[in-house]
Amino acid sequence: MNEAAPIRRRSTVRMNTSDKRLNDSASQSQYQPYKDAAWGFVNHWYPALFSEELPEDKVEGIQICGIPIVLRRVDGKIYALKDQCLHRGVRLSAKPTCFNKSSITCWYHGFTFDLADGLLSTIVANPDDPLVGTTGITSYPVEEAGGMIFVFVREDDYPLDDVPPLSQDLPIRFPENNARFPHPLWPDAPSLLDEGAVALGLHRTGQSNWRIACENGFDNAHILIHKDNTIVHALNWVLPLGILPNHEEPITLTEDEDGPKGLMQWLFTDRWKPVMENPALGLKIDALNGRFYRTSVVLPGCLMVENWPEEHIVQYEWYVPITDDLYEYWEVMVRVCKTDQEKAAFKHRFDHVFMPLCLRGFNDCDLYAREAMEEFYADGTGWDNEQLAATDVSAITWRKVASRWNRGIAKPGKGVPGATKTSSIRLRRLAEGKAPGYFVEKIEDVNTY
Amino acid sequence: MNEAAPIRRRSTVRMNTSDKRLNDSASQSQYQPYKDAAWGFVNHWYPALFSEELPEDKVEGIQICGIPIVLRRVDGKIYALKDQCLHRGVRLSAKPTCFNKSSITCWYHGFTFDLADGLLSTIVANPDDPLVGTTGITSYPVEEAGGMIFVFVREDDYPLDDVPPLSQDLPIRFPENNARFPHPLWPDAPSLLDEGAVALGLHRTGQSNWRIACENGFDNAHILIHKDNTIVHALNWVLPLGILPNHEEPITLTEDEDGPKGLMQWLFTDRWKPVMENPALGLKIDALNGRFYRTSVVLPGCLMVENWPEEHIVQYEWYVPITDDLYEYWEVMVRVCKTDQEKAAFKHRFDHVFMPLCLRGFNDCDLYAREAMEEFYADGTGWDNEQLAATDVSAITWRKVASRWNRGIAKPGKGVPGATKTSSIRLRRLAEGKAPGYFVEKIEDVNTY
Amino acid sequence: MNEAAPIRRRSTVRMNTSDKRLNDSASQSQYQPYKDAAWGFVNHWYPALFSEELPEDKVEGIQICGIPIVLRRVDGKIYALKDQCLHRGVRLSAKPTCFNKSSITCWYHGFTFDLADGLLSTIVANPDDPLVGTTGITSYPVEEAGGMIFVFVREDDYPLDDVPPLSQDLPIRFPENNARFPHPLWPDAPSLLDEGAVALGLHRTGQSNWRIACENGFDNAHILIHKDNTIVHALNWVLPLGILPNHEEPITLTEDEDGPKGLMQWLFTDRWKPVMENPALGLKIDALNGRFYRTSVVLPGCLMVENWPEEHIVQYEWYVPITDDLYEYWEVMVRVCKTDQEKAAFKHRFDHVFMPLCLRGFNDCDLYAREAMEEFYADGTGWDNEQLAATDVSAITWRKVASRWNRGIAKPGKGVPGATKTSSIRLRRLAEGKAPGYFVEKIEDVNTY
Repeated sequence: MNEAAPIRRRSTVRMNTSDKRLNDSASQSQYQPYKDAAWGFVNHWYPALFSEELPEDKVEGIQICGIPIVLRRVDGKIYALKDQCLHRGVRLSAKPTCFNKSSITCWYHGFTFDLADGLLSTIVANPDDPLVGTTGITSYPVEEAGGMIFVFVREDDYPLDDVPPLSQDLPIRFPENNARFPHPLWPDAPSLLDEGAVALGLHRTGQSNWRIACENGFDNAHILIHKDNTIVHALNWVLPLGILPNHEEPITLTEDEDGPKGLMQWLFTDRWKPVMENPALGLKIDALNGRFYRTSVVLPGCLMVENWPEEHIVQYEWYVPITDDLYEYWEVMVRVCKTDQEKAAFKHRFDHVFMPLCLRGFNDCDLYAREAMEEFYADGTGWDNEQLAATDVSAITWRKVASRWNRGIAKPGKGVPGATKTSSIRLRRLAEGKAPGYFVEKIEDVNTY
Repeated sequence: MNEAAPIRRRSTVRMNTSDKRLNDSASQSQYQPYKDAAWGFVNHWYPALFSEELPEDKVEGIQICGIPIVLRRVDGKIYALKDQCLHRGVRLSAKPTCFNKSSITCWYHGFTFDLADGLLSTIVANPDDPLVGTTGITSYPVEEAGGMIFVFVREDDYPLDDVPPLSQDLPIRFPENNARFPHPLWPDAPSLLDEGAVALGLHRTGQSNWRIACENGFDNAHILIHKDNTIVHALNWVLPLGILPNHEEPITLTEDEDGPKGLMQWLFTDRWKPVMENPALGLKIDALNGRFYRTSVVLPGCLMVENWPEEHIVQYEWYVPITDDLYEYWEVMVRVCKTDQEKAAFKHRFDHVFMPLCLRGFNDCDLYAREAMEEFYADGTGWDNEQLAATDVSAITWRKVASRWNRGIAKPGKGVPGATKTSSIRLRRLAEGKAPGYFVEKIEDVNTY
Repeated sequence: MNEAAPIRRRSTVRMNTSDKRLNDSASQSQYQPYKDAAWGFVNHWYPALFSEELPEDKVEGIQICGIPIVLRRVDGKIYALKDQCLHRGVRLSAKPTCFNKSSITCWYHGFTFDLADGLLSTIVANPDDPLVGTTGITSYPVEEAGGMIFVFVREDDYPLDDVPPLSQDLPIRFPENNARFPHPLWPDAPSLLDEGAVALGLHRTGQSNWRIACENGFDNAHILIHKDNTIVHALNWVLPLGILPNHEEPITLTEDEDGPKGLMQWLFTDRWKPVMENPALGLKIDALNGRFYRTSVVLPGCLMVENWPEEHIVQYEWYVPITDDLYEYWEVMVRVCKTDQEKAAFKHRFDHVFMPLCLRGFNDCDLYAREAMEEFYADGTGWDNEQLAATDVSAITWRKVASRWNRGIAKPGKGVPGATKTSSIRLRRLAEGKAPGYFVEKIEDVNTY
């Protein structure tokens, strides 16, 4: 028997991580908070539901940044509380129970919370319990704008006095910023906060971390995945191979004291150069024919695509963290409609063109592309090992600005869906064909006999 | 660029854990063993199967407290062994193979075990192997009573000489305890051990830890989930909002040296007060009209509901730990039937009333309620963070008595279903629509050609 | 209240691990590398696809030893690269994109890699990026033989100069080894490398670790699971109860410097004794009537069953590690066919007899038997606690020879499918009814509007 171990030579090969990558360690050190934000940034405004998803007296349960949230609309006003009974942790929204307009009661043991502030105001079967009035569940400020419901997702001890206006977590508005960010080629992008703003869109759950989803939104180098989209061919667009930064400041930060924090990309100006040719691959574009648009992103991850998919319309997107591996993908188009007729026309065109060709056909490709990254990033490998190139300046800039200005890094969820990846109830739902999602699963009374 | 970090104020808010909760840290310290018993209490009697589930010569595999167990009935007598071949760990029950009446053989490599004591008595293809006679698998005492099969689930080194009688792990019996626990309002509750006792019921797998299931069984504050059950409306019951302890000893412990260890609640006596009104919520009950019943619970988690759902009948429940996040839920009604006619009448009423309206309709709500707690407790968060109120004295008393008297805390399962939450075979079964359960999946010979 | 803890006696029982087991600790210490090889042995040749699964210009993605691998065939020649874009980790094969014959381009951001060596040769939209030419992805040598594609799955820094010929990872060849391993009873076993060798078979994913699968292949003690297979009854075979080693060298190692490393079992010689009787169980075989065959196994886990299922045919099997809990099971029959007519005849008999009765009917039982072991081994319990008997000398010998001669132990996968057992994309696929497997899930353009 040969007892000698085989001799193994190891030669140096060049397939290691390149020291030319844009995200070298010096760069990475400037966005460590972003790398830590697997569960999202907390103490920010996030879209929770479309207004029409929460009609009068409806109760819905969702989860953002690992925090379960229950919403109820009473007399038109919306209230939001932590959706986890302080008694034994069940979700209030699983079987909505309300005995009056000012409270919500846990369906299990009757713990009752003031909608306004979350205080434990009574217990159905024990009004005089010592607990009453001494504890409660966190309440969340709510705003409604343009047909969307926003919730300020705060840490339990974040003071309500410090809650900023919704506008600080939405893209900058025009025309007030025309001078700083001129865009001569198209009309002002409408804001959700404009009078008459109408938001049409959808939201759905994506199976990836919110950050890799978000970075796809303003990624200037992913044109390849869209090259065969129906809208491109239907409108005879001719896209460049990509676009490259061509200026010392291709991106401008927005970091005003009282404004949104993020970045604006100077697309379709001379600060970015369309790439028309790749000789090595024999690729060559003769003449461009496409849409001009401009992308920006602000904390906590709100994309704005101006002048898209046509004039007077802007597309917003959010990538709302549910857990560290799920996000709610919001795709919303906003237009200011001054009359019901304008609104109907917008709705008609949205239903028949934008929904199928843009939010589905076009953005479906983005959704799948993000999910294709999930395995690489899921175990942390990706954030260290990715090798970024010049066009990734956008992602890196975003990571840095988000690291500087976020209002808090969400703690890993505790005692909530997704905190234990393999909780038995989650596995049973998988067996039933239900992937983890955004909404609470309601308990049906099955008492059919 | 603004380099200054934003200033963040943090004001004190009252939404913290209340120091008025019943489960304060002093209380929690008295039931630490219970908090440790995620996989159950071992060295106790548990129901394994209904007698009719194990006809002559049938072999079945189940799992209790993380211990896989195979049962075989031979000439009427039932044997139970550890269902994990000591050779390479497969479950004997997956493809039952028996060559005689006194043994069971592993279908894979022929390792053969004495049913009586688990000794490796031979190997099919190697009768003289040195291993034979030197090792074996653990055997478990079995008792059959009232149509149910009980197994004493012991640790490998728990002496058979120390196995207590089944009666020590069942509720106390009447009339011998009438003096201590008088119940003038109804007939004696039958015991499974009574002559002529007939047990009818079902068992099914619940997706939660066994403890949160068990605590629901004798929880006096969860009337809300039952308020709209068909049986309540059909029988015109008017339930109180809840009931509150109203005496210095609302609960009496049962801790006799040679008897079951647990507690009895003095329900429907003046020691508990029905709650008729909650002014804050405008709720008021005029006059009660309902069943009188009494609940008790003994180790290892056996509930008794006397006088339920009608006179002469008692409902037993068990919450048998399978893993730390699955339990087998047993719902059994017992009646002493002196004649075949009485038995037939009980069976008829059970099939047409109790099964649909009680074990299904009514108890279905309990099943879902327990599962609604699972996420909160699955990562350990719940046991520390729950805020219990006055009526939870029942759960806390149970936790303490169980901590004092259990015969052992089950170790986390090893090498068995559920020990590795994401074993590939488990994932494949999820994909096939099969949630983890109680029974072994049998191997079918697919050799159809 | 009785405060005294119950007294617990513990008597010594004999149900502990036997000191007579063949895998005592001295034995175990000789195969520690094997115990560490949960993700497989790396720097070996593995089957990747059947030739017909990769027609001209097709791109496929698979995973071996936790390494994702993309294959493309161009002008008949096959190239293999790491199937993980160095940019952001997506799999190149998910949406194959190739602009010329010498490269493959990432469908997401256009990173383009030379098929020949994996070098990052260009980026579609940034041909001049500093990254280009400074980094790349690992390339893997490929060989095609007898209708099968083999890939040398190497660590990133394993020198290409050191890659051994495919023959070093395939069973020894006849007639050149007739003298060392005489087999007078049957014709020479054909080799995949013989001229005219035709390989017919299938591969499918098994839900267990590759090692417990592999050990089943040459296990002489598992006849029980095959006793009722249709082929056994159809051909009137009478099998022994098992066979036992009957000689000081029942197994011979193959450890030539430049040859495959493994073992050959002297089955159907006097070195192994058929077991005809088990008196304790009343089992007795009168006269054998069966096939003579011989099994051997070589690194990295290639089984050869000579003279099976009939003369002139040999069955090869591989148990290719995908992750630590999934393997690709290859079942291949090889015959040398000198004419097209012979080939057609072999194919006909394969389709109508060997595929249904052997690769399915017979080997299906092996597949299920391996999966039955998975829970026991999944948490590491099995490798320490199994109690092996005399016939397991085969497995132990294999473990030792594999420990001595493997070319590297695969590191746990990183950033790849199965590295995170519960990545959200994996869970979604479970909910969709798709168990984790071997092939990449392709991205479909759903742009149907």
